Amino acid sequence: MIPAPFLLYLGHGADPLGIKTSRGLAEFRRGDCVGEFRSDEGPLTLGLPRLGIREAAALGARTLVLGIAGPGGRLPAELVDDAAEALEAGLHVAAGLHERLRDQPRLIALAAARGLELFDVRDPPADLAVGTGAPRAGRRLLTVGTDCSVGKMYATLALARGLRARGLSADFRATGQTGILIAGSGVPVDAVVADFISGAIERLAPARDDGGWDLIEGQGSLFHPSFAGVSLGLLHGAQAEALVLCHEPGRPHLRLLPGFPVPGLAECLARNLEAARLTSAHVRAVGVCLNTSAMAPADARRLCAETEDALGLPCTDPIAFGVDPIIDRLPCPAS
Amino acid sequence: MIPAPFLLYLGHGADPLGIKTSRGLAEFRRGDCVGEFRSDEGPLTLGLPRLGIREAAALGARTLVLGIAGPGGRLPAELVDDAAEALEAGLHVAAGLHERLRDQPRLIALAAARGLELFDVRDPPADLAVGTGAPRAGRRLLTVGTDCSVGKMYATLALARGLRARGLSADFRATGQTGILIAGSGVPVDAVVADFISGAIERLAPARDDGGWDLIEGQGSLFHPSFAGVSLGLLHGAQAEALVLCHEPGRPHLRLLPGFPVPGLAECLARNLEAARLTSAHVRAVGVCLNTSAMAPADARRLCAETEDALGLPCTDPIAFGVDPIIDRLPCPAS
Repeated sequence: MIPAPFLLYLGHGADPLGIKTSRGLAEFRRGDCVGEFRSDEGPLTLGLPRLGIREAAALGARTLVLGIAGPGGRLPAELVDDAAEALEAGLHVAAGLHERLRDQPRLIALAAARGLELFDVRDPPADLAVGTGAPRAGRRLLTVGTDCSVGKMYATLALARGLRARGLSADFRATGQTGILIAGSGVPVDAVVADFISGAIERLAPARDDGGWDLIEGQGSLFHPSFAGVSLGLLHGAQAEALVLCHEPGRPHLRLLPGFPVPGLAECLARNLEAARLTSAHVRAVGVCLNTSAMAPADARRLCAETEDALGLPCTDPIAFGVDPIIDRLPCPAS
Repeated sequence: MIPAPFLLYLGHGADPLGIKTSRGLAEFRRGDCVGEFRSDEGPLTLGLPRLGIREAAALGARTLVLGIAGPGGRLPAELVDDAAEALEAGLHVAAGLHERLRDQPRLIALAAARGLELFDVRDPPADLAVGTGAPRAGRRLLTVGTDCSVGKMYATLALARGLRARGLSADFRATGQTGILIAGSGVPVDAVVADFISGAIERLAPARDDGGWDLIEGQGSLFHPSFAGVSLGLLHGAQAEALVLCHEPGRPHLRLLPGFPVPGLAECLARNLEAARLTSAHVRAVGVCLNTSAMAPADARRLCAETEDALGLPCTDPIAFGVDPIIDRLPCPAS
């Protein structure tokens, strides 16, 4: 486990989606976060105290979390510099990038000299197997999306909480760096060797017979030309009985790809259901989660109602309005 | 480059599809193969002289190619033993498994002591980028399949040869271990980190403006629950203007998965076209390649004719009957 409390890194960028890992920790493990570290020119904030690295260490921070995620998962030189400064101040460093902390000789030397650790949470398990699609027991729900970074993790965490609040057994199954940092375990599915995508998910959410739910965090989108392969393997490996479609209204195009429109909700859902049937013949859509954080509440309510009418499915913003409308209509446990 | 001539390893198994890498080399680089190495109990043969390892070395073999491929790409102990024997006899060793030769200390020590090399052809390039889907110039054709190991590589190689025979510029772009061993280069797409599947293919077949074709070897199947993620990322990365559907008639179920039926050709083609349109709006199906090696020639001819009528596309067995029917109907170069 990564030692808390955390100092959350926001870095130098201005892309609110680029700090989603730090944001997720601030949202779901706020009690473990002492502050945020950001550069003078960076306009982003998570509303935590702004701290320098030594200041944070003095306040008890134990780990600097490099909670940013650019395309390709690169580890730019400025992050290495800031990580080195954190190690010099006595902090562990955690990151979830494709480029690993442990591949930086400078960081390794600093960590070794001070007895500190480098946590690369995007390391997949070493002994994954190819997926089989073999039917397995258990109740599984998967979130799917029209795009990357539309709120699939938030929706999945909210659904897990909501089910537990009703006395059901429900486990969040993390598939991305942020979810893994929040949950303390999971499989970074976009970092596994391509042959093992579905196998990784079969392992993440194995057969269970306690009547409880596995809530599996989706990744990417079947309509995103960079990442659809990950999304499809995840969909097949999940063998979900229930899909929840996640969407952020108002995006002008797919994340980072101006030439690509965001797919329509009905089309996106239909394509996901069609593909999911390969390993889960009776899969059903059970709801839609909108990320309406950029909308006025009245507009958000109206959009949820309209979406509900258009798709014939419960629709909510899981953060603003909760997930009861979806949980209310989940099928009863098979007898 | 891997030094020829080769001794082809068939191992101990009885699964004809398990030796497809050795078979591909025997088919497409037969002049570079001195013989085959197989155990007494193994029923498989490629029709090459059966040789022991020292016998092969005495006949001039320079590399033992472990041309077998089980699910998961494991390197079992018996292969390590046989590879060690080859090194002791003065042969280099090549393999295309997920488990690497270079991770075997015994093989490393033997190779180092004798000045020999270990070739892991499934190593992806280290500096891949996330795919972008950005439109790029050039003519690209991709083979897709109803299942794994149905003849996509054979069809792709045959199409490249056929185009070149007509004086066109055409390059085979290998995406699997066998194709890479045949072509001498390529990207093992099932071995890349999942986030980079489509990016790997964008790099394998970059923009070209010489009017020539890139013939991209497909992998897996959108309908195979183990590997569909790879197939979809490959499809998006290929940005092909032309798809050729490959199929082996008579399979009782998907490779290694008794519970999963082989999809129908029309459905499989439709699903591939639908997905391909994300990055290639005007993609078209241009033909069907059947692997009829297990059929009588008259039956094979009849099946090709029936398939042609049913799908409205040229249909052939690329090995038995050639690829002219498909090349004849390829669209003319854009003017």
